[in-house]
Amino acid sequence: MAKGKLYGIGVGPGDSKLMTVKAVEILRSADMIITPKTEKKDGSVAFHIASPYIPEGTEILPLVFQMNNDMAAVERQWEENRRVIMEKLDEGKNLVFLTLGDPMLYSTYMYIFRVLEDTDYEVETVPGIPAFLGIASHIGMPVAEWEETVLILPATASPEKIDQALAAADHAVIMKVYKNWAFIQSELRKHHLIKNAVMVSRAGLPDEVIQRDLDSLPADYRPNYLSTILTKRDDL
Amino acid sequence: MAKGKLYGIGVGPGDSKLMTVKAVEILRSADMIITPKTEKKDGSVAFHIASPYIPEGTEILPLVFQMNNDMAAVERQWEENRRVIMEKLDEGKNLVFLTLGDPMLYSTYMYIFRVLEDTDYEVETVPGIPAFLGIASHIGMPVAEWEETVLILPATASPEKIDQALAAADHAVIMKVYKNWAFIQSELRKHHLIKNAVMVSRAGLPDEVIQRDLDSLPADYRPNYLSTILTKRDDL
Repeated sequence: MAKGKLYGIGVGPGDSKLMTVKAVEILRSADMIITPKTEKKDGSVAFHIASPYIPEGTEILPLVFQMNNDMAAVERQWEENRRVIMEKLDEGKNLVFLTLGDPMLYSTYMYIFRVLEDTDYEVETVPGIPAFLGIASHIGMPVAEWEETVLILPATASPEKIDQALAAADHAVIMKVYKNWAFIQSELRKHHLIKNAVMVSRAGLPDEVIQRDLDSLPADYRPNYLSTILTKRDDL
Repeated sequence: MAKGKLYGIGVGPGDSKLMTVKAVEILRSADMIITPKTEKKDGSVAFHIASPYIPEGTEILPLVFQMNNDMAAVERQWEENRRVIMEKLDEGKNLVFLTLGDPMLYSTYMYIFRVLEDTDYEVETVPGIPAFLGIASHIGMPVAEWEETVLILPATASPEKIDQALAAADHAVIMKVYKNWAFIQSELRKHHLIKNAVMVSRAGLPDEVIQRDLDSLPADYRPNYLSTILTKRDDL
Protein backbone atom coordinates (compact mmCIF):
# COMPACT_ATOMS: atom_id res chain seq x y z
CA MET A 1 0.00 0.00 0.00
CA ALA A 2 1.27 3.46 -0.83
CA LYS A 3 2.35 5.47 2.17
CA GLY A 4 0.45 8.60 3.12
CA LYS A 5 1.88 12.09 3.01
CA LEU A 6 2.19 14.73 5.69
CA TYR A 7 1.13 18.27 4.80
CA GLY A 8 2.02 21.32 6.89
CA ILE A 9 -0.41 24.07 5.98
CA GLY A 10 -0.32 27.75 6.88
CA VAL A 11 -3.91 28.98 7.26
CA GLY A 12 -2.98 32.67 7.21
CA PRO A 13 -3.86 35.49 9.61
CA GLY A 14 -7.52 34.85 10.44
CA ASP A 15 -9.96 35.26 7.55
CA SER A 16 -10.69 31.81 6.07
CA LYS A 17 -10.68 33.40 2.62
CA LEU A 18 -7.03 34.34 3.07
CA MET A 19 -6.16 30.65 2.88
CA THR A 20 -4.58 29.56 -0.39
CA VAL A 21 -6.30 27.59 -3.12
CA LYS A 22 -3.71 24.87 -2.56
CA ALA A 23 -4.44 24.64 1.18
CA VAL A 24 -8.16 24.30 0.46
CA GLU A 25 -7.58 21.57 -2.12
CA ILE A 26 -5.39 19.56 0.26
CA LEU A 27 -7.89 19.89 3.12
CA ARG A 28 -10.71 18.64 0.91
CA SER A 29 -8.90 15.36 0.28
CA ALA A 30 -7.10 14.92 3.63
CA ASP A 31 -7.83 11.85 5.73
CA MET A 32 -6.81 13.23 9.08
CA ILE A 33 -6.02 16.53 10.82
CA ILE A 34 -3.42 16.59 13.57
CA THR A 35 -4.41 18.89 16.44
CA PRO A 36 -2.55 19.79 19.61
CA LYS A 37 -4.07 18.01 22.59
CA THR A 38 -3.00 20.76 25.02
CA GLU A 39 -4.81 23.97 25.81
CA LYS A 40 -2.53 25.84 23.40
CA LYS A 41 -4.73 28.38 21.66
CA ASP A 42 -2.92 28.51 18.30
CA GLY A 43 -4.03 25.03 17.31
CA SER A 44 -7.72 25.59 17.86
CA VAL A 45 -7.67 29.02 16.18
CA ALA A 46 -6.00 27.50 13.09
CA PHE A 47 -8.61 24.73 13.08
CA HIS A 48 -11.40 27.28 13.31
CA ILE A 49 -10.01 29.27 10.35
CA ALA A 50 -9.70 26.13 8.22
CA SER A 51 -13.03 24.57 9.29
CA PRO A 52 -15.12 25.87 6.33
CA TYR A 53 -12.91 23.72 4.10
CA ILE A 54 -12.67 20.58 6.26
CA PRO A 55 -15.17 17.98 5.01
CA GLU A 56 -17.42 16.35 7.56
CA GLY A 57 -16.04 13.02 8.65
CA THR A 58 -12.36 14.00 8.41
CA GLU A 59 -10.63 12.24 11.28
CA ILE A 60 -8.92 14.19 14.04
CA LEU A 61 -5.61 13.03 15.51
CA PRO A 62 -4.88 14.78 18.82
CA LEU A 63 -1.19 14.81 19.76
CA VAL A 64 0.44 16.19 22.89
CA PHE A 65 2.89 19.04 22.20
CA GLN A 66 4.13 19.74 25.64
CA MET A 67 6.79 22.27 26.49
CA ASN A 68 8.39 21.89 29.85
CA ASN A 69 11.79 21.71 31.42
CA ASP A 70 11.83 17.95 31.76
CA MET A 71 13.70 17.26 28.53
CA ALA A 72 13.47 13.49 28.99
CA ALA A 73 9.67 13.67 29.19
CA VAL A 74 9.54 15.89 26.09
CA GLU A 75 11.79 13.42 24.24
CA ARG A 76 9.56 10.51 25.19
CA GLN A 77 6.49 12.42 24.08
CA TRP A 78 8.08 13.11 20.72
CA GLU A 79 9.08 9.52 20.24
CA GLU A 80 5.45 8.61 20.85
CA ASN A 81 4.20 11.31 18.42
CA ARG A 82 6.66 10.13 15.80
CA ARG A 83 5.44 6.55 16.24
CA VAL A 84 1.75 7.54 15.88
CA ILE A 85 2.39 9.75 12.84
CA MET A 86 4.42 7.06 11.06
CA GLU A 87 1.76 4.45 11.86
CA LYS A 88 -0.93 6.59 10.24
CA LEU A 89 1.27 7.32 7.21
CA ASP A 90 2.01 3.59 6.89
CA GLU A 91 -1.74 2.99 6.77
CA GLY A 92 -1.75 5.24 3.67
CA LYS A 93 -3.46 8.16 5.35
CA ASN A 94 -2.75 11.74 4.31
CA LEU A 95 -2.22 13.87 7.41
CA VAL A 96 -2.48 17.64 7.76
CA PHE A 97 -0.96 19.84 10.43
CA LEU A 98 -2.49 23.33 10.50
CA THR A 99 -0.57 26.37 11.60
CA LEU A 100 -1.63 30.00 12.11
CA GLY A 101 0.07 32.35 9.65
CA ASP A 102 2.99 30.62 7.92
CA PRO A 103 4.52 27.27 8.91
CA MET A 104 8.12 28.50 8.56
CA LEU A 105 7.75 31.64 10.68
CA TYR A 106 7.59 31.04 14.46
CA SER A 107 5.51 27.89 14.21
CA THR A 108 5.27 24.64 16.16
CA TYR A 109 5.04 22.88 12.80
CA MET A 110 8.84 22.72 12.78
CA TYR A 111 8.59 19.96 15.39
CA ILE A 112 6.42 17.82 13.16
CA PHE A 113 8.57 18.64 10.15
CA ARG A 114 11.75 17.54 11.91
CA VAL A 115 10.20 14.29 13.06
CA LEU A 116 10.02 13.22 9.42
CA GLU A 117 12.81 15.29 7.87
CA ASP A 118 15.40 12.51 7.60
CA THR A 119 13.00 9.69 6.81
CA ASP A 120 11.65 8.61 3.42
CA TYR A 121 8.11 9.73 4.29
CA GLU A 122 6.86 12.44 1.98
CA VAL A 123 6.29 15.87 3.52
CA GLU A 124 4.90 18.97 1.82
CA THR A 125 4.77 22.41 3.38
CA VAL A 126 2.27 24.98 2.09
CA PRO A 127 3.06 28.60 2.96
CA GLY A 128 0.49 30.97 4.44
CA ILE A 129 0.13 34.70 4.94
CA PRO A 130 1.76 35.78 8.22
CA ALA A 131 -0.22 37.96 10.65
CA PHE A 132 1.93 41.05 10.06
CA LEU A 133 1.14 41.10 6.34
CA GLY A 134 -2.55 40.64 7.06
CA ILE A 135 -2.37 43.64 9.37
CA ALA A 136 -0.39 45.76 6.88
CA SER A 137 -3.03 45.33 4.16
CA HIS A 138 -5.86 45.78 6.65
CA ILE A 139 -4.61 49.13 7.97
CA GLY A 140 -3.01 50.28 4.69
CA MET A 141 0.52 50.58 6.03
CA PRO A 142 3.45 49.38 3.89
CA VAL A 143 5.88 47.08 5.65
CA ALA A 144 8.78 48.26 3.48
CA GLU A 145 9.54 50.03 0.23
CA TRP A 146 12.56 50.55 -2.01
CA GLU A 147 15.86 49.88 -0.25
CA GLU A 148 14.43 49.86 3.25
CA THR A 149 15.12 47.07 5.73
CA VAL A 150 12.59 45.30 7.94
CA LEU A 151 13.27 43.72 11.28
CA ILE A 152 10.89 41.08 12.63
CA LEU A 153 11.25 40.33 16.30
CA PRO A 154 9.23 38.76 19.11
CA ALA A 155 8.77 41.05 22.12
CA THR A 156 9.68 37.99 24.20
CA ALA A 157 13.33 38.15 23.03
CA SER A 158 15.95 39.34 25.51
CA PRO A 159 16.13 43.11 26.20
CA GLU A 160 19.70 43.20 24.82
CA LYS A 161 18.66 41.50 21.59
CA ILE A 162 15.66 43.80 21.16
CA ASP A 163 17.77 46.89 21.78
CA GLN A 164 20.53 45.85 19.39
CA ALA A 165 18.11 44.78 16.66
CA LEU A 166 15.92 47.90 16.77
CA ALA A 167 19.01 50.14 16.48
CA ALA A 168 19.62 48.95 12.91
CA ALA A 169 16.11 48.76 11.41
CA ASP A 170 14.24 51.08 9.06
CA HIS A 171 10.98 49.24 9.70
CA ALA A 172 10.15 46.94 12.58
CA VAL A 173 7.50 44.30 13.16
CA ILE A 174 7.24 43.47 16.86
CA MET A 175 5.20 40.41 17.67
CA LYS A 176 3.75 39.00 20.88
CA VAL A 177 3.68 42.38 22.60
CA TYR A 178 2.01 41.80 25.92
CA LYS A 179 3.48 41.97 29.39
CA ASN A 180 6.60 43.94 28.53
CA TRP A 181 4.86 46.96 27.00
CA ALA A 182 6.73 49.54 29.12
CA PHE A 183 10.07 48.24 27.86
CA ILE A 184 8.92 48.08 24.24
CA GLN A 185 7.57 51.64 24.49
CA SER A 186 10.88 52.93 25.85
CA GLU A 187 12.76 51.09 23.08
CA LEU A 188 10.50 52.56 20.39
CA ARG A 189 11.18 56.05 21.79
CA LYS A 190 14.91 55.46 22.09
CA HIS A 191 15.28 54.26 18.49
CA HIS A 192 12.98 56.89 16.95
CA LEU A 193 10.39 54.30 15.99
CA ILE A 194 7.41 55.48 18.04
CA LYS A 195 5.93 58.25 15.88
CA ASN A 196 4.80 55.90 13.11
CA ALA A 197 4.04 52.89 15.29
CA VAL A 198 0.65 51.16 15.15
CA MET A 199 -0.32 48.35 17.51
CA VAL A 200 -2.96 45.89 16.33
CA SER A 201 -4.69 42.88 17.81
CA ARG A 202 -7.40 40.65 16.30
CA ALA A 203 -7.14 42.51 12.96
CA GLY A 204 -10.31 42.33 10.91
CA LEU A 205 -12.35 40.69 13.67
CA PRO A 206 -15.27 42.39 15.44
CA ASP A 207 -13.15 42.92 18.56
CA GLU A 208 -10.06 44.26 16.78
CA VAL A 209 -8.02 46.94 18.57
CA ILE A 210 -5.91 49.43 16.60
CA GLN A 211 -3.77 51.82 18.68
CA ARG A 212 -2.07 54.63 16.78
CA ASP A 213 -0.59 57.06 19.29
CA LEU A 214 1.71 54.73 21.17
CA ASP A 215 3.74 57.57 22.66
CA SER A 216 0.68 58.63 24.68
CA LEU A 217 -0.16 55.20 26.02
CA PRO A 218 0.60 54.79 29.72
CA ALA A 219 3.59 52.62 30.61
CA ASP A 220 1.30 50.31 32.60
CA TYR A 221 -1.00 49.74 29.63
CA ARG A 222 -1.75 46.07 28.99
CA PRO A 223 -1.97 45.33 25.26
CA ASN A 224 -4.28 42.53 24.18
CA TYR A 225 -2.70 39.12 24.21
CA LEU A 226 -0.47 38.71 21.16
CA SER A 227 -0.64 42.25 19.79
CA THR A 228 1.61 43.17 16.87
CA ILE A 229 3.35 46.51 16.31
CA LEU A 230 4.23 47.79 12.83
CA THR A 231 6.49 50.82 12.66
CA LYS A 232 9.16 52.71 10.75
CA ARG A 233 11.77 55.25 11.66
CA ASP A 234 10.52 58.80 12.31
CA ASP A 235 12.50 60.18 9.37
CA LEU A 236 11.27 57.74 6.73
CA MET B 1 -24.42 55.11 -10.10
CA ALA B 2 -22.34 53.44 -7.42
CA LYS B 3 -18.65 54.05 -7.73
CA GLY B 4 -16.31 51.15 -8.45
CA LYS B 5 -13.73 49.88 -6.04
CA LEU B 6 -9.98 49.44 -6.41
CA TYR B 7 -8.47 46.16 -5.27
CA GLY B 8 -4.74 45.64 -4.73
CA ILE B 9 -4.09 41.92 -4.82
CA GLY B 10 -0.95 40.01 -3.89
CA VAL B 11 -0.69 36.96 -6.16
CA GLY B 12 1.99 35.24 -4.06
CA PRO B 13 5.38 33.79 -5.03
CA GLY B 14 4.65 32.04 -8.33
CA ASP B 15 2.36 29.02 -8.15
CA SER B 16 -1.19 30.12 -9.08
CA LYS B 17 -2.53 27.81 -6.37
CA LEU B 18 -0.71 29.86 -3.75
CA MET B 19 -3.15 32.69 -4.43
CA THR B 20 -5.79 33.20 -1.76
CA VAL B 21 -9.44 32.21 -2.07
CA LYS B 22 -10.28 35.90 -1.65
CA ALA B 23 -8.00 36.98 -4.51
CA VAL B 24 -9.60 34.40 -6.79
CA GLU B 25 -13.12 35.54 -5.88
CA ILE B 26 -12.30 39.18 -6.56
CA LEU B 27 -10.66 38.38 -9.90
CA ARG B 28 -13.72 36.41 -11.01
CA SER B 29 -15.94 39.47 -10.64
CA ALA B 30 -13.48 42.23 -11.57
CA ASP B 31 -14.25 44.48 -14.54
CA MET B 32 -10.73 45.57 -15.32
CA ILE B 33 -7.11 44.69 -14.55
CA ILE B 34 -4.53 47.48 -14.38
CA THR B 35 -1.21 46.43 -15.92
CA PRO B 36 2.06 48.31 -16.18
CA LYS B 37 2.61 49.54 -19.72
CA THR B 38 6.39 49.46 -19.42
CA GLU B 39 8.69 46.50 -19.95
CA LYS B 40 8.82 45.98 -16.21
CA LYS B 41 8.81 42.22 -15.68
CA ASP B 42 6.96 42.09 -12.35
CA GLY B 43 3.65 43.17 -13.83
CA SER B 44 3.55 40.53 -16.53
CA VAL B 45 4.69 37.78 -14.16
CA ALA B 46 1.90 38.70 -11.71
CA PHE B 47 -0.59 38.66 -14.59
CA HIS B 48 0.64 35.25 -15.70
CA ILE B 49 0.24 33.82 -12.17
CA ALA B 50 -3.30 35.19 -11.87
CA SER B 51 -4.38 34.31 -15.41
CA PRO B 52 -6.06 30.95 -14.60
CA TYR B 53 -8.56 32.95 -12.54
CA ILE B 54 -9.12 35.91 -14.87
CA PRO B 55 -12.34 35.38 -16.86
CA GLU B 56 -12.17 35.85 -20.60
CA GLY B 57 -13.37 39.29 -21.56
CA THR B 58 -11.98 41.07 -18.49
CA GLU B 59 -10.75 44.46 -19.69
CA ILE B 60 -7.10 45.44 -19.41
CA LEU B 61 -6.06 48.97 -18.44
CA PRO B 62 -2.40 49.61 -19.28
CA LEU B 63 -0.84 52.43 -17.24
CA VAL B 64 2.67 53.84 -17.44
CA PHE B 65 4.67 53.43 -14.23
CA GLN B 66 7.84 55.15 -15.18
CA MET B 67 10.77 55.66 -12.86
CA ASN B 68 13.27 58.25 -13.89
CA ASN B 69 15.05 61.25 -12.54
CA ASP B 70 12.78 63.80 -14.16
CA MET B 71 10.48 64.29 -11.18
CA ALA B 72 8.22 66.69 -13.07
CA ALA B 73 7.58 64.09 -15.78
CA VAL B 74 6.86 61.43 -13.17
CA GLU B 75 4.43 63.79 -11.43
CA ARG B 76 2.61 64.50 -14.69
CA GLN B 77 2.39 60.79 -15.40
CA TRP B 78 0.88 60.16 -12.00
CA GLU B 79 -1.65 62.93 -12.40
CA GLU B 80 -2.70 61.26 -15.65
CA ASN B 81 -2.88 57.80 -14.02
CA ARG B 82 -4.95 59.21 -11.19
CA ARG B 83 -7.34 60.81 -13.69
CA VAL B 84 -7.78 57.55 -15.65
CA ILE B 85 -8.28 55.43 -12.50
CA MET B 86 -10.87 57.82 -11.07
CA GLU B 87 -12.69 57.97 -14.40
CA LYS B 88 -13.02 54.18 -14.47
CA LEU B 89 -14.12 54.07 -10.84
CA ASP B 90 -16.70 56.80 -11.54
CA GLU B 91 -18.06 54.57 -14.32
CA GLY B 92 -18.73 51.99 -11.59
CA LYS B 93 -15.97 49.62 -12.67
CA ASN B 94 -14.12 47.45 -10.17
CA LEU B 95 -10.39 47.65 -10.85
CA VAL B 96 -7.66 45.24 -9.81
CA PHE B 97 -3.96 45.89 -9.51
CA LEU B 98 -1.90 42.70 -9.29
CA THR B 99 1.37 42.52 -7.45
CA LEU B 100 3.93 39.71 -7.10
CA GLY B 101 4.20 38.44 -3.53
CA ASP B 102 2.50 40.83 -1.10
CA PRO B 103 1.26 44.37 -1.90
CA MET B 104 2.71 45.90 1.28
CA LEU B 105 6.22 44.47 0.95
CA TYR B 106 8.42 46.17 -1.67
CA SER B 107 5.63 46.65 -4.19
CA THR B 108 4.74 49.28 -6.79
CA TYR B 109 1.16 48.94 -5.58
CA MET B 110 1.92 51.61 -2.98
CA TYR B 111 1.83 54.18 -5.81
CA ILE B 112 -1.68 53.22 -6.78
CA PHE B 113 -2.73 53.01 -3.16
CA ARG B 114 -1.48 56.53 -2.42
CA VAL B 115 -3.26 57.95 -5.44
CA LEU B 116 -6.56 57.10 -3.77
CA GLU B 117 -5.59 57.10 -0.09
CA ASP B 118 -7.03 60.49 0.78
CA THR B 119 -10.06 60.36 -1.48
CA ASP B 120 -13.46 58.83 -0.81
CA TYR B 121 -12.94 56.08 -3.35
CA GLU B 122 -13.02 52.64 -1.80
CA VAL B 123 -9.77 50.68 -1.81
CA GLU B 124 -9.21 47.13 -0.55
CA THR B 125 -5.81 45.48 -0.28
CA VAL B 126 -5.56 41.68 -0.24
CA PRO B 127 -2.32 40.27 1.17
CA GLY B 128 -0.29 37.59 -0.62
CA ILE B 129 2.51 35.20 0.26
CA PRO B 130 5.90 36.88 -0.18
CA ALA B 131 8.62 35.09 -2.18
CA PHE B 132 10.80 34.38 0.86
CA LEU B 133 8.05 32.40 2.58
CA GLY B 134 7.36 30.47 -0.61
CA ILE B 135 11.06 29.58 -0.72
CA ALA B 136 11.21 28.64 2.96
CA SER B 137 8.40 26.08 2.60
CA HIS B 138 9.78 24.85 -0.71
CA ILE B 139 13.27 24.09 0.63
CA GLY B 140 12.13 23.19 4.17
CA MET B 141 14.10 25.90 5.95
CA PRO B 142 12.50 27.81 8.83
CA VAL B 143 12.72 31.58 8.59
CA ALA B 144 12.69 31.97 12.37
CA GLU B 145 11.80 30.11 15.54
CA TRP B 146 11.28 30.98 19.20
CA GLU B 147 12.83 34.32 20.19
CA GLU B 148 14.94 34.70 17.06
CA THR B 149 14.94 37.86 14.98
CA VAL B 150 14.69 38.12 11.19
CA LEU B 151 16.11 40.86 9.05
CA ILE B 152 14.71 41.42 5.56
CA LEU B 153 16.84 43.56 3.29
CA PRO B 154 17.26 44.24 -0.42
CA ALA B 155 20.81 43.65 -1.68
CA THR B 156 20.40 46.99 -3.46
CA ALA B 157 20.56 48.92 -0.16
CA SER B 158 23.71 50.89 0.61
CA PRO B 159 26.78 48.92 1.77
CA GLU B 160 26.71 50.74 5.14
CA LYS B 161 23.08 49.86 5.71
CA ILE B 162 23.62 46.21 4.76
CA ASP B 163 26.64 45.94 7.04
CA GLN B 164 24.91 47.53 10.01
CA ALA B 165 21.72 45.54 9.57
CA LEU B 166 23.39 42.13 9.17
CA ALA B 167 25.41 42.70 12.35
CA ALA B 168 22.26 42.49 14.48
CA ALA B 169 20.28 39.65 12.86
CA ASP B 170 19.77 36.02 13.88
CA HIS B 171 18.21 35.22 10.51
CA ALA B 172 18.47 37.22 7.31
CA VAL B 173 16.46 37.31 4.10
CA ILE B 174 18.40 39.07 1.36
CA MET B 175 16.42 39.92 -1.72
CA LYS B 176 17.36 41.07 -5.21
CA VAL B 177 20.83 39.55 -5.02
CA TYR B 178 22.39 40.08 -8.40
CA LYS B 179 25.26 42.29 -9.43
CA ASN B 180 26.72 42.83 -5.98
CA TRP B 181 27.30 39.16 -5.14
CA ALA B 182 30.95 39.63 -4.13
CA PHE B 183 29.98 42.22 -1.52
CA ILE B 184 27.07 40.14 -0.18
CA GLN B 185 29.34 37.09 0.08
CA SER B 186 31.94 39.05 2.05
CA GLU B 187 29.20 40.41 4.35
CA LEU B 188 27.79 36.92 4.96
CA ARG B 189 31.29 35.73 5.91
CA LYS B 190 31.98 38.73 8.10
CA HIS B 191 28.76 38.36 10.09
CA HIS B 192 28.92 34.54 10.42
CA LEU B 193 25.89 34.07 8.22
CA ILE B 194 27.41 32.09 5.34
CA LYS B 195 27.45 28.52 6.67
CA ASN B 196 23.66 28.16 6.66
CA ALA B 197 22.96 30.40 3.67
CA VAL B 198 20.88 29.12 0.74
CA MET B 199 20.40 31.14 -2.45
CA VAL B 200 17.29 30.44 -4.51
CA SER B 201 15.87 31.74 -7.75
CA ARG B 202 12.67 30.72 -9.56
CA ALA B 203 11.67 28.44 -6.67
CA GLY B 204 9.37 25.62 -7.71
CA LEU B 205 9.71 26.33 -11.43
CA PRO B 206 11.42 23.97 -13.88
CA ASP B 207 14.44 26.28 -14.11
CA GLU B 208 14.83 26.84 -10.37
CA VAL B 209 18.36 27.24 -9.01
CA ILE B 210 19.18 26.34 -5.38
CA GLN B 211 22.75 27.08 -4.25
CA ARG B 212 23.73 25.74 -0.84
CA ASP B 213 27.48 26.17 -0.41
CA LEU B 214 27.75 29.92 -0.83
CA ASP B 215 31.19 30.07 0.77
CA SER B 216 32.60 28.12 -2.20
CA LEU B 217 30.99 30.23 -4.91
CA PRO B 218 33.49 32.42 -6.77
CA ALA B 219 33.32 36.14 -6.06
CA ASP B 220 32.62 36.82 -9.73
CA TYR B 221 29.60 34.48 -9.73
CA ARG B 222 26.50 36.02 -11.27
CA PRO B 223 23.35 34.92 -9.44
CA ASN B 224 20.17 34.69 -11.45
CA TYR B 225 18.24 37.90 -11.69
CA LEU B 226 16.35 38.50 -8.42
CA SER B 227 17.78 35.64 -6.38
CA THR B 228 16.88 35.46 -2.68
CA ILE B 229 19.17 34.32 0.13
CA LEU B 230 17.83 32.79 3.35
CA THR B 231 20.29 32.34 6.17
CA LYS B 232 20.85 32.22 9.92
CA ARG B 233 23.85 32.72 12.17
CA ASP B 234 26.41 29.90 12.23
CA ASP B 235 25.77 29.24 15.92
CA LEU B 236 21.98 28.92 15.74
